[in-house]
Amino acid sequence: MKKLKRSGRLVDMTNFLLNHPNQLIPLHHFAERYAAARSSISEDLAIVKEIFESEQMGYLTTVPGVSGGVRYEPAVSDGEAETLVDRLCRRLEEPDRLLPGGYLYMMDILGQPGWLNEIGRLLAGIYRGENIDVVMTMATKGIPLAYAVAACVDAPICIARRDHRVTEGSVVSINYVSGSANRVQTMSLARRSIPEGSNVLIVDDFMKGGGTARGMSELLTEVNARLAGIAVLVEAHRRERLIDDYISLVRLDEVNEKEKQIKATPGNYTKYLFS
Amino acid sequence: MKKLKRSGRLVDMTNFLLNHPNQLIPLHHFAERYAAARSSISEDLAIVKEIFESEQMGYLTTVPGVSGGVRYEPAVSDGEAETLVDRLCRRLEEPDRLLPGGYLYMMDILGQPGWLNEIGRLLAGIYRGENIDVVMTMATKGIPLAYAVAACVDAPICIARRDHRVTEGSVVSINYVSGSANRVQTMSLARRSIPEGSNVLIVDDFMKGGGTARGMSELLTEVNARLAGIAVLVEAHRRERLIDDYISLVRLDEVNEKEKQIKATPGNYTKYLFS
Repeated sequence: MKKLKRSGRLVDMTNFLLNHPNQLIPLHHFAERYAAARSSISEDLAIVKEIFESEQMGYLTTVPGVSGGVRYEPAVSDGEAETLVDRLCRRLEEPDRLLPGGYLYMMDILGQPGWLNEIGRLLAGIYRGENIDVVMTMATKGIPLAYAVAACVDAPICIARRDHRVTEGSVVSINYVSGSANRVQTMSLARRSIPEGSNVLIVDDFMKGGGTARGMSELLTEVNARLAGIAVLVEAHRRERLIDDYISLVRLDEVNEKEKQIKATPGNYTKYLFS
Repeated sequence: MKKLKRSGRLVDMTNFLLNHPNQLIPLHHFAERYAAARSSISEDLAIVKEIFESEQMGYLTTVPGVSGGVRYEPAVSDGEAETLVDRLCRRLEEPDRLLPGGYLYMMDILGQPGWLNEIGRLLAGIYRGENIDVVMTMATKGIPLAYAVAACVDAPICIARRDHRVTEGSVVSINYVSGSANRVQTMSLARRSIPEGSNVLIVDDFMKGGGTARGMSELLTEVNARLAGIAVLVEAHRRERLIDDYISLVRLDEVNEKEKQIKATPGNYTKYLFS
């Protein structure tokens, strides 16, 4: 790479860090990349850090020592989180999302990079420092959401399925009771998609009774992996739930099919905000 | 936002552009954000553009005039593309991916943000200027890949399914002949996931006979949408195929279950490289 001035280095460095979230980048990587002294690189990084933190784009952590370096961890500010969740609530309250059975059409949000990029950074910020090895989700609609989180924490995603059609070698299956349908169902997972001992974050788009999330955490036990947490975009309002420990961004307080009324409020995530 | 020096503006601007790919950002957005003169913003953008283009991180296009602005379009350089595809080939040739029936385990690549981020930028660069409105894929394994492309072109993703379990209002289904299994199957799509007239890029992880891709393009006809292109990560070697016009990154020339030998070579994408 040709020698760059500070202004050029700052642009290139920002780009590099954003494209390598949650990875420890040794300082000599930048020193070699720009043929610059380590002291210049340290000054550059101080500028990047100041802006990342004053604009609350996430964290830039410097790890000192020979095996040290710099790590960018995506997050959003509390204010952005509040605005984002508020916008989500207003969108979810649009009456034309109502589907028969009291379900809501959410694919316009669940497939939209503009939303998912921000939601991914928000959830990654909440689980910052948890050393997530794998992000797990249930097919199908929540996969882009899970991937958006996985991209921010730099962990692979693993997809469980509600059938036996996993064609990827040895499969682990369990039976579970869906809290909403109240009947026994099966979920399966390719064994090699989660290495033993992995620390796994479960991400899903929607939670009713919590049966699916509990089933996924049981699958983790089967493959000797650890549960790092459960995060859902939207939870339905329930008096009882099969799991207690989860984070939701939005809670549906009311879905009235007859009156075509939906009421959405912020979920319990506010308890976990980073500031 | 507090007034920033040039160095701070460059960091913030780079971050903003990378988080808003394929969107036209009016110059006054930055002028207001930094309480700076438009002439300073233009100079900042010239520096950003020079670095983006000399480091081949993608394109920064300035659109002049009142309704103009600046647009960042992700891409990778030809050299990066070659290295990436070469690494993909070597990884795919690892004998322990072989599954019964001559299938390959690919989820370690298809769920890995490190790979998908680069593959997404490569494919987005190939379809640059095509005005993609929607990225369509078939459930399940290709969804993170499709989302990685969708995030780069800033288009929503839409998921077709091989069953009727689409629970999202009005559904369009077709029967199609899978080229590999050679039997009639069904695929379905929520009608509201693709607005009429959309320009749709189909992205899938694997193509054998091309039946699935052809089925998806028939679904597009049903919902009055246009096919912008078909991109697959890996194509199996075939003498005949149900579709001709597609882009592949990798071609499997040989999968020999008995000898545990896999041979992978670059696909036809090289014809479409941007330089």
